[in-house]
Amino acid sequence: MVIPFSYRVIYGDTDQMGVMYYANYLRLFEAGRCEYMQVKGCPYSEVEKRGVLLPISEAHVNYIKPALFDETITVHTKVDLVKGARVNFSYEVTKAQGDLLATGFTNHAALDSDRRVIRVPADLIELLSPENC
Amino acid sequence: MVIPFSYRVIYGDTDQMGVMYYANYLRLFEAGRCEYMQVKGCPYSEVEKRGVLLPISEAHVNYIKPALFDETITVHTKVDLVKGARVNFSYEVTKAQGDLLATGFTNHAALDSDRRVIRVPADLIELLSPENC
Amino acid sequence: MVIPFSYRVIYGDTDQMGVMYYANYLRLFEAGRCEYMQVKGCPYSEVEKRGVLLPISEAHVNYIKPALFDETITVHTKVDLVKGARVNFSYEVTKAQGDLLATGFTNHAALDSDRRVIRVPADLIELLSPENC
Amino acid sequence: MVIPFSYRVIYGDTDQMGVMYYANYLRLFEAGRCEYMQVKGCPYSEVEKRGVLLPISEAHVNYIKPALFDETITVHTKVDLVKGARVNFSYEVTKAQGDLLATGFTNHAALDSDRRVIRVPADLIELLSPENC
Repeated sequence: MVIPFSYRVIYGDTDQMGVMYYANYLRLFEAGRCEYMQVKGCPYSEVEKRGVLLPISEAHVNYIKPALFDETITVHTKVDLVKGARVNFSYEVTKAQGDLLATGFTNHAALDSDRRVIRVPADLIELLSPENC
Repeated sequence: MVIPFSYRVIYGDTDQMGVMYYANYLRLFEAGRCEYMQVKGCPYSEVEKRGVLLPISEAHVNYIKPALFDETITVHTKVDLVKGARVNFSYEVTKAQGDLLATGFTNHAALDSDRRVIRVPADLIELLSPENC
Repeated sequence: MVIPFSYRVIYGDTDQMGVMYYANYLRLFEAGRCEYMQVKGCPYSEVEKRGVLLPISEAHVNYIKPALFDETITVHTKVDLVKGARVNFSYEVTKAQGDLLATGFTNHAALDSDRRVIRVPADLIELLSPENC
Repeated sequence: MVIPFSYRVIYGDTDQMGVMYYANYLRLFEAGRCEYMQVKGCPYSEVEKRGVLLPISEAHVNYIKPALFDETITVHTKVDLVKGARVNFSYEVTKAQGDLLATGFTNHAALDSDRRVIRVPADLIELLSPENC
């Protein structure tokens, strides 16, 4: 299951090359991830209240075409893997017309509130699992 | 005329106090301003293509209550003044339930592409003017 | 007492107007404030560990000249007032050559870790007080 | 040749997990890259004035340990490859005490000011080349 989230690029996202600054794609990925979790019934804010943290262990972005100011772009988010202590998301960013702007992934490790590695709780695996869509 | 723009606070907007970082209200004000100009028929991206820049000369924020992660908040934008080389916007940020989180303003000076002060073009005054709503 | 803190503008600070984005001055003010508190012997990280928070109640920036990519700029920070539950800082941002780029202020309210307004602890008033310099 | 650049984490870099937000490592990598180019005699601002752009085609971060507010961290930058139209940088982020916090890389494609792929100019290859250190 792929969940879309749309965003209009603001001036503050651009740099002097006239395009969205490369770090801001990771902000966009996060917005896509939050939308995914919300739609699947486990908003990250709720997960965190239960004492489960999902910090990022690895992030990757391929930049294909630039995103411009005032353009509405869409991040399409899916879960590639949820198993043991790991959750892996992947992303595609497109323009309204469908042009592919960027792809990427983030890998996450489940931690408890004392920052110890834990298994992702079973109900969360159920909700996030790519098979259950 | 007051134009609303809604935004869901991401993790990247928060700081370790658990609230939206104070500088990010200025990003939100910008998103509100862009929405205002879009709705009024003069998107800032178009204005800039005509060679008119509206850089900020002054910005102010009053922080009343914190905005939290995953909350949807709304910035309500209006024009207070558009005259000569000046455009002044003001903002109110509220929660879904109506709680007031912040207020503020930004004052702008119209410049041409060589960064010389110019009068705001007449059609833009017309479109942005608070009387014409 | 005025404490200087120097910073080289990165690409990510600029926007497509080719200048530092207006919200990033509040990041710079924060860096100046942290430097001030560090130099005066009460780093903000230590203050927070004692359970005293100093969230911002008001922020203001006057933008005079743009800061450009790769320029080293300096924020000069001082305390204007520390009294009761309030701490007020003010800032001047200059270029290496002395040109004034921006001025501004931030007002802070002292809170305890339950977010209740408290008096600034006496030793902190002592350390921060503009008279004690 | 590895060039170090030190940075003190500000409040605005952290998120509500109490650690530096994952996107901000890409800002730090950029600061490291700028320092590298400055030290090697080809500041990126100069390169850009000659009409050579080096936008990022790929970015990767491994997050090992968190960076905390008010900590001074160091990014160690080197060039892995400069050849044809490509420049590849890699990075290690450490704490003062030497703890490894993160590693990563960015790959860049040389473009002219019309955004066409070009060979990296010979003198720039010379200056950036990892062999010439």
